[in-house]
Amino acid sequence: MNIVVQKFGGTSVRNLECQRQVMQKVLRPYREGNKVIVVLSAMSGETNRLLALAREWSDNPDPAEADSLVSTGEQISCALFTMLLKQQGVACRSVLGFQAPIKTDCAYGKARIVDIDETRIKEMLNEYDILVMAGFQGCDDDLRITTLGRGGSDTSAVALAAAVKADICEIFTDVPGVFTTDPNMCSDARKLDRITYDEMLEMASMGAKVLQIRSVEFAKKYNVTVHVRSTFSDEPGTVVTKEDPTMEAALVSGIAYDKDQARITLINLEDKPGVSAQIFTPLANQRILVDMIVQNPSKNGKTDMTFTVPRADVDQTLKTLDALRYEIGFDAIDSNLNVSKVSIIGVGMRNHSGVASRAFRALADENINILMISTSEIKITCLIDDKYTELAVRTLHKAFELENGPLGNA
Amino acid sequence: MNIVVQKFGGTSVRNLECQRQVMQKVLRPYREGNKVIVVLSAMSGETNRLLALAREWSDNPDPAEADSLVSTGEQISCALFTMLLKQQGVACRSVLGFQAPIKTDCAYGKARIVDIDETRIKEMLNEYDILVMAGFQGCDDDLRITTLGRGGSDTSAVALAAAVKADICEIFTDVPGVFTTDPNMCSDARKLDRITYDEMLEMASMGAKVLQIRSVEFAKKYNVTVHVRSTFSDEPGTVVTKEDPTMEAALVSGIAYDKDQARITLINLEDKPGVSAQIFTPLANQRILVDMIVQNPSKNGKTDMTFTVPRADVDQTLKTLDALRYEIGFDAIDSNLNVSKVSIIGVGMRNHSGVASRAFRALADENINILMISTSEIKITCLIDDKYTELAVRTLHKAFELENGPLGNA
Repeated sequence: MNIVVQKFGGTSVRNLECQRQVMQKVLRPYREGNKVIVVLSAMSGETNRLLALAREWSDNPDPAEADSLVSTGEQISCALFTMLLKQQGVACRSVLGFQAPIKTDCAYGKARIVDIDETRIKEMLNEYDILVMAGFQGCDDDLRITTLGRGGSDTSAVALAAAVKADICEIFTDVPGVFTTDPNMCSDARKLDRITYDEMLEMASMGAKVLQIRSVEFAKKYNVTVHVRSTFSDEPGTVVTKEDPTMEAALVSGIAYDKDQARITLINLEDKPGVSAQIFTPLANQRILVDMIVQNPSKNGKTDMTFTVPRADVDQTLKTLDALRYEIGFDAIDSNLNVSKVSIIGVGMRNHSGVASRAFRALADENINILMISTSEIKITCLIDDKYTELAVRTLHKAFELENGPLGNA
Repeated sequence: MNIVVQKFGGTSVRNLECQRQVMQKVLRPYREGNKVIVVLSAMSGETNRLLALAREWSDNPDPAEADSLVSTGEQISCALFTMLLKQQGVACRSVLGFQAPIKTDCAYGKARIVDIDETRIKEMLNEYDILVMAGFQGCDDDLRITTLGRGGSDTSAVALAAAVKADICEIFTDVPGVFTTDPNMCSDARKLDRITYDEMLEMASMGAKVLQIRSVEFAKKYNVTVHVRSTFSDEPGTVVTKEDPTMEAALVSGIAYDKDQARITLINLEDKPGVSAQIFTPLANQRILVDMIVQNPSKNGKTDMTFTVPRADVDQTLKTLDALRYEIGFDAIDSNLNVSKVSIIGVGMRNHSGVASRAFRALADENINILMISTSEIKITCLIDDKYTELAVRTLHKAFELENGPLGNA
């Protein structure tokens, strides 16, 4: 049984006309003899409408009830789309989260998939040629409805593809694919034909909104080939896949950035064992996402500790640490809200030297000062003054010749 | 465990303000120490909105998908109402049809309840003080969502009350209770304190829209005491219950009418064995509801057969029978669309003679001609010219002194 999974977002199913376009996309693999699992989001605007109702009804809506409420969005889009398909004489049905079932934990509003009953889904695929499945939702052991959080439909699609060992998981969206960098910022940005899971994870963690980060983790874990492509064109998009050693790897795949950052420095910190835990445990407890931690070498038992946090969490960070000043032991806190992160991402840099120096030289040539540096196996991130973000992205894009395709910058 | 079931219709839950009023009704039995099962309809207008979407999407919407679609209406009202209750610190949750589960057959759009898992519901009542249950919906063996048809929430409530052996099933509606006749037609109409299941069934079958007829059948079968009362007042309404031999039975409980009737007569019908089946089987196959069948004594092997059908079905009836004229064997069809049925209903007439003659005399005194008569154990129905409907109802109401309460007409 050849199975194709296709996922369409809220914009793609927002009205009858759009759903008719989606139907054409769905009928193609069906007519080629594949079984098709279509994963749909709620019609655009519906989830927000329902959440607004919840907030009108309660200052603090019960999370389980909120999930039961918002899950109706996908229930409606799936029922309507199935009606449309049925008129074409296709053997099809809608399948809700609890019917599949897509079993999750009971963390309402941000549930994680724990199990999908592939036997049940295969049974349904024997009876029907197309299953129209509600994205974003599942159920816990008690059959209560759960949702997977914003963008969860991507994860639903990839998880279903993994469970039924689908040949391909196509994620249809309103952009043509994954780009070497933000096309709004750099007119030379080029659509990538392929990108590895790890590169996509780094891109997503830097705010590239093409795929939900958890769906990429899922795809990597279960080795699901994901094709990100446009609902509004027939052009191929970007294939997200595992690293292929026979493939000529690009040195650098893309340049990502994140302007929503702030720098915090603790000055003259007492450099004693356990001091890092004293600083970062209280921040983690408040779900503040700390990144890019740098500690200067100690002098006379004192050091400076610098790290970045999302801009929205700066006040909370300063308040929390200030209250612990004598317990932790430091002289002052300094913060800078006008910073951004720029990253060079590519699995190719594992096997090539000189990527960092080429990047630093390019930025230096434009007089862009690097405030902090952190590196991982496939990423180099620089913290810079945020007014240079666009310039830095364009400079790095050019320095690695990303406009020229995968072989240009090797 | 004392359990109270309360059902609220779409008008009662149509917005936040109405739901707050409903909450006060629900909190009363809760504060008195009862466990409460609240059965809710969709917010008024929502079911029609969803059905309109279905018709926009498909000329012939798939019934299973239509059920999945419209069931979101109750899902939304239940989630929102539970959020409201939660804010009061009540241990409560919403329960959808598939969660209870309320098992039905798979006749989508008009499913019948086949089983309710009372053990599961009792378990939930041990954990929660109030269960907010979606009316109108259930699920089939395959966990697909079904709906019970218009007014099905009444049936949900009575079936749940039967399953958990509730002390009372309160049906809150926009009228104060069941009346001796239509108050819009007869200003002397009086609210009944009690009515038997059989009387209520006869009233409902005559178009009294206070309770869905299937819910009354259910209540009778499982001996559920139903209290029909107003959402907008604290006055007691009408208790629908079994016949109580110790109770002084009223001779007549109410006068019902149905203006949506037409008379059909087959003239010079060949009076041969099986001719009734030849006439009524094809009509039944088209779901035409035939009532009040009267056959004149046969003369020379020929007779006249008269019956009534709903006015909307007259054309279909005439067409069907005309096509079978030679097969059945009759000379002509005559029809009259200007007729209505008026009924006198009361369990008391079982033990009293003279009810029919008192009714006929009263109508005769007003020069109202009776076109047909049919009687059952607790009902006498007269077919009359429809322009006399209001007069006939008022005349009969007065003849049986219904304005004076249960003992007045004994």
